[in-house]
Amino acid sequence: MKKLAIWLWLALTGTLTAPAQQEIFAPRAVAPVVNADGSVTLTLFNPVAKQAQLVFDGIAPQTMTRDSAGVWTVTTPALADGIYRYNFLVDGQKTLDNSNAFTMRDVATVMNTIVVDRSGACPFASHDVPHGNISAVWYPATQGKTRRMMVYTPAGYDDTDARYPVFYLLHGSGGDETAWLEQGRLAQVMDNLIAQGKAVPMIVVMPNGNVDEDAAPGNGSAGQVQPTFDHKQWMEGSFETTFGDITNYVQTHYRVKTGADNTAIAGLSMGGFHSLYISANHPHDFGYVGLFSAAITPRNNPNSPIYANIDAKLATQFAANPRLYWIGIGSDDFLYQENKAFRQQLDAAGCKYVYHESTGGHEWRNWRDYLTLFTPLLFKP
Amino acid sequence: MKKLAIWLWLALTGTLTAPAQQEIFAPRAVAPVVNADGSVTLTLFNPVAKQAQLVFDGIAPQTMTRDSAGVWTVTTPALADGIYRYNFLVDGQKTLDNSNAFTMRDVATVMNTIVVDRSGACPFASHDVPHGNISAVWYPATQGKTRRMMVYTPAGYDDTDARYPVFYLLHGSGGDETAWLEQGRLAQVMDNLIAQGKAVPMIVVMPNGNVDEDAAPGNGSAGQVQPTFDHKQWMEGSFETTFGDITNYVQTHYRVKTGADNTAIAGLSMGGFHSLYISANHPHDFGYVGLFSAAITPRNNPNSPIYANIDAKLATQFAANPRLYWIGIGSDDFLYQENKAFRQQLDAAGCKYVYHESTGGHEWRNWRDYLTLFTPLLFKP
Repeated sequence: MKKLAIWLWLALTGTLTAPAQQEIFAPRAVAPVVNADGSVTLTLFNPVAKQAQLVFDGIAPQTMTRDSAGVWTVTTPALADGIYRYNFLVDGQKTLDNSNAFTMRDVATVMNTIVVDRSGACPFASHDVPHGNISAVWYPATQGKTRRMMVYTPAGYDDTDARYPVFYLLHGSGGDETAWLEQGRLAQVMDNLIAQGKAVPMIVVMPNGNVDEDAAPGNGSAGQVQPTFDHKQWMEGSFETTFGDITNYVQTHYRVKTGADNTAIAGLSMGGFHSLYISANHPHDFGYVGLFSAAITPRNNPNSPIYANIDAKLATQFAANPRLYWIGIGSDDFLYQENKAFRQQLDAAGCKYVYHESTGGHEWRNWRDYLTLFTPLLFKP
Repeated sequence: MKKLAIWLWLALTGTLTAPAQQEIFAPRAVAPVVNADGSVTLTLFNPVAKQAQLVFDGIAPQTMTRDSAGVWTVTTPALADGIYRYNFLVDGQKTLDNSNAFTMRDVATVMNTIVVDRSGACPFASHDVPHGNISAVWYPATQGKTRRMMVYTPAGYDDTDARYPVFYLLHGSGGDETAWLEQGRLAQVMDNLIAQGKAVPMIVVMPNGNVDEDAAPGNGSAGQVQPTFDHKQWMEGSFETTFGDITNYVQTHYRVKTGADNTAIAGLSMGGFHSLYISANHPHDFGYVGLFSAAITPRNNPNSPIYANIDAKLATQFAANPRLYWIGIGSDDFLYQENKAFRQQLDAAGCKYVYHESTGGHEWRNWRDYLTLFTPLLFKP
């Protein structure tokens, strides 16, 4: 009631901005409710729509039911703990949930999100545990501009002189330096795993793998341009070639332990591709490598020195006995065959790796899960 | 074409997640276009809607025009450089622009945003200038939990031993530690003003003024709760009482210059109220004070020692000759009379302040402008 009173007060005084005013007139829909069985109930107020559907991660589209006041309601099946994206289709048109302030951007698509955390231990939910800090950091890049990366430092980092191992975590095509934080829930995962003693405290560095942009759209020199898959410097060697800009900045600006035993690299899709070739070209630098639904075969500029002689580079890399080479992919992923061929190549060469095959395809649900599986394996004595 | 090819490829392989798939079927609307005259053209694809309107910051609702394919279009009047929020009303229902990935949250309301920057010098736009870093930082709080604040450190901070002045910047009711960054464009404003030599490099600290939450909704121990105006610890003295937690952490973790001449505090609405009482209760600590559309009169717990004897406290504060006491408000602001009475009180006591009266009401457009006016006045020799 206090909220409504404030809205009305602001509205009556004429000072509420126009885009907010109409919120007052649609109070009949309510914020998402997670029910005791793990199902989620969602509502939408629209008295003129003829039909409404729910489009929700991992389940088939659900038909919504209208009441006499024009409130549409739907309850999902019971869901496992996790974070889910959804939107409505109102007479076939994508519509966000005006009763839910939580959204998530995937490339240029904005969707609502809901967290199901019945156990109170969902790794993707924010809990009452010590939190690491997150920084958006500009580092000098070979190209002449500064570029932006995100850095997670674990709880306690700023109150000790200790050094920490470092984990470079790379996004996929269409993503940027914000993707692992926003869609991947990196901060929540790290906070929770470290608090539970499942992962050791570490620094996580999330750079931007699109070398033709200096930062996520809206944050860099290009101004407010729409996010896109379409990058000129994409998987053509420029990110791998200039990766030393990032490691150099991190080593000079953070208290990191150095050496392969204290350095991990992993990424999803394009970021897995980057991880594969960066680590293969620096065979003594990364003791832990993770390929999450990785692209394997060079697509653009395959003749780049970065991609040449990969068999010999892998032989050198595996001869150095990396502590972990981890490959994860979903059985329905369109990169499944490419990964299978890569595993056969590694098998034939006698290279040891850990393989995790999940259900599902090329999707964030898998990459979040892989993160919770990979991170506890890092930097253990 | 490359983007469309990727979408189709992902769709054909069956691996695109459901919420993204339907994007493919609505390509006829396009991202917002800023025209040469500063007008903005927006489009919406909805073949079944009977009417569509645009609700846009600072202008009257605009009727959209439908073409035969179901694409609705509207062009705003020419706009001054700035950042604007908008949404559509489709048959009266709030709808976001699916062709624009940029959104902004105000309390629990999500709106699209568009930047108009014809001059190339809009202070709220991201430009190709040196960028400061932004950190989400957890500090130990008197209440026993850590609480989160955002900290801007200017470009160069991490590559020098220099000390910097510090500016504490407080949000309003319904806001949180993210408000000045998201709606206030703090990083863009500071980067641009510092690059132009209009503001001196400084550290900007943006805490969370709602003491009953440890962080912005979704980031703290309460999990993914909806943002609200309705806080138990709101304007009742707890934030002012525990403000030393923040200054103490900043002084021990950042290279800040100390003393009133190097310390500023300002805020909007509730944050202006907080700035007024924090600075009055620490009359020798803040050489620069800014009240942006500030609440003045204690509303909750007015008998708190924080709010008692304000006349005597202000007398002590002004006797110490603050370098700047700045009051800004819009002529249509519902707090206008309250501010007028406060100015009369200061006038009667012979207290010197700078007054800026703008048009408009209790709105972010004014607060962003006040920030660009106030910040250049800070810490000048």
